[in-house]
Amino acid sequence: MTVGFLGPKATFTEYAVKSIFSDQNRIPYASIHGCLDAVKNGDVSFGVVPIENTIEGSVTNTLDYLIHDHPLTIVGEIVVPIQQHLMVHPDHVEHLQEVETIYSHPHALAQCRKHLANHYKSAEQIQTLSTSAAAQLIANHPKQISAAIANELAAEVYGLSIVERDIQDYQNNHTRFIIVTNEQRNFPVESTSNVKTTLIITLPLDQAGALHQVLSAFAWRKINLTKIESRPMKTGLGNYLFIIDIDQALDQVLIPGAIAELQALGCGVISLGSYPIFEVK
Amino acid sequence: MTVGFLGPKATFTEYAVKSIFSDQNRIPYASIHGCLDAVKNGDVSFGVVPIENTIEGSVTNTLDYLIHDHPLTIVGEIVVPIQQHLMVHPDHVEHLQEVETIYSHPHALAQCRKHLANHYKSAEQIQTLSTSAAAQLIANHPKQISAAIANELAAEVYGLSIVERDIQDYQNNHTRFIIVTNEQRNFPVESTSNVKTTLIITLPLDQAGALHQVLSAFAWRKINLTKIESRPMKTGLGNYLFIIDIDQALDQVLIPGAIAELQALGCGVISLGSYPIFEVK
Repeated sequence: MTVGFLGPKATFTEYAVKSIFSDQNRIPYASIHGCLDAVKNGDVSFGVVPIENTIEGSVTNTLDYLIHDHPLTIVGEIVVPIQQHLMVHPDHVEHLQEVETIYSHPHALAQCRKHLANHYKSAEQIQTLSTSAAAQLIANHPKQISAAIANELAAEVYGLSIVERDIQDYQNNHTRFIIVTNEQRNFPVESTSNVKTTLIITLPLDQAGALHQVLSAFAWRKINLTKIESRPMKTGLGNYLFIIDIDQALDQVLIPGAIAELQALGCGVISLGSYPIFEVK
Repeated sequence: MTVGFLGPKATFTEYAVKSIFSDQNRIPYASIHGCLDAVKNGDVSFGVVPIENTIEGSVTNTLDYLIHDHPLTIVGEIVVPIQQHLMVHPDHVEHLQEVETIYSHPHALAQCRKHLANHYKSAEQIQTLSTSAAAQLIANHPKQISAAIANELAAEVYGLSIVERDIQDYQNNHTRFIIVTNEQRNFPVESTSNVKTTLIITLPLDQAGALHQVLSAFAWRKINLTKIESRPMKTGLGNYLFIIDIDQALDQVLIPGAIAELQALGCGVISLGSYPIFEVK
């Protein structure tokens, strides 16, 4: 069994994959689209891509694929705490005060902004395409006294020394990744966690209170929505669809009732799956 | 008067800025945070950063700054159609069939995926940090038979020849940019368009139907919400705040009434501004 993921190697996405699929063959893909296509075509059994609050990828690309290209089934969610570490080549552990350049992905640099402003004010910040690309760059230039911001896995893969841990400004930041598949598969990992359902709802027209009416179908049944997001439908600005997360499984009495009501009102409803949540420590 | 924007030069953000602030001095910043800090500190009069469906920047960074760092006022929105062009060095206009490498930002490559698969299947795709960085790379390596995907402004700035226009897969894709300021300023550009209000609402607790209750305050007044998005509050997973766009100005009778009701129910409500929308053709 193989698992595809948004590459390159040693990013937060591979960190998420490794925490759940420890023994499986992992294949990196250059884009979210490439990874999800591999799942669609059966080249890999499962795919793992970021969906929220991400560093390496883009929520937009993931959602757009599932909505507009091919409705793969979500079979699990992996929640990873964002822990950014400052790392250098092992030769330079003693020269931390001389670091002139710090490399990382723009979002990682942004996440450590206050720390960098307080402790490395004079160091130049250079953006890279991923956190692991920054680590690789440091490994490939051992003579430069430079540092990278990346995760634990990148330090391990590229043989760097972590000199400062957890330098992100917010300690409660997480990234959510989804595990998708193209067919009914026995998901190989057990979870005792909560189950969640993701629905995509399109509204019949852009009218005052239409969204309120949609939410009424859930509210009077006391179905709790943990997330709601509107996205353009790509048919022009102002036409939105809604992505809704519900904190229970789809195979209950109440959710099918709500869905039937919404469809009777002219809404389109697609389920992307009911799935367990894996929280990585 | 100076206007800061998310750089580098010749990205879609500068394209948006140029369409509204044609004569003003434009200053690029390396990050969304840097640009918004410059607005906060008064180094520039206005700042322009992407907020939705963006290529160069991140919605997350923009919203997080306004919510968690400093509540700047939004004084306008610029909506730019995403038009991706394939461009080469002027020496290679006749060698389009020999293009071996295509450079662009990961999101731009994703947006032209079908076109590239149909017409440039054998060309290698290489990711760059921005669309304009791709154009600059082509300009700096005139001997390579390579192409970049970028916008009109990048072709102009870097002296490249556009060989194929509008190669994006979806024709109705747009990016929204916001214009922010730190004080009451007379906004120098007139607009005859609709006005929009953006509110940030925090819920007292994560309970079934809480969001429904919030939306009720708008629905029974027939106040139309054009966008709603939930974002983690950074105090832990599951604590969400909501960003709501309303298609009218704040200085009406009904919206202040709705806000007062929400506050009485224990919600936090912050207005990020009421502002005109500029649609770039």
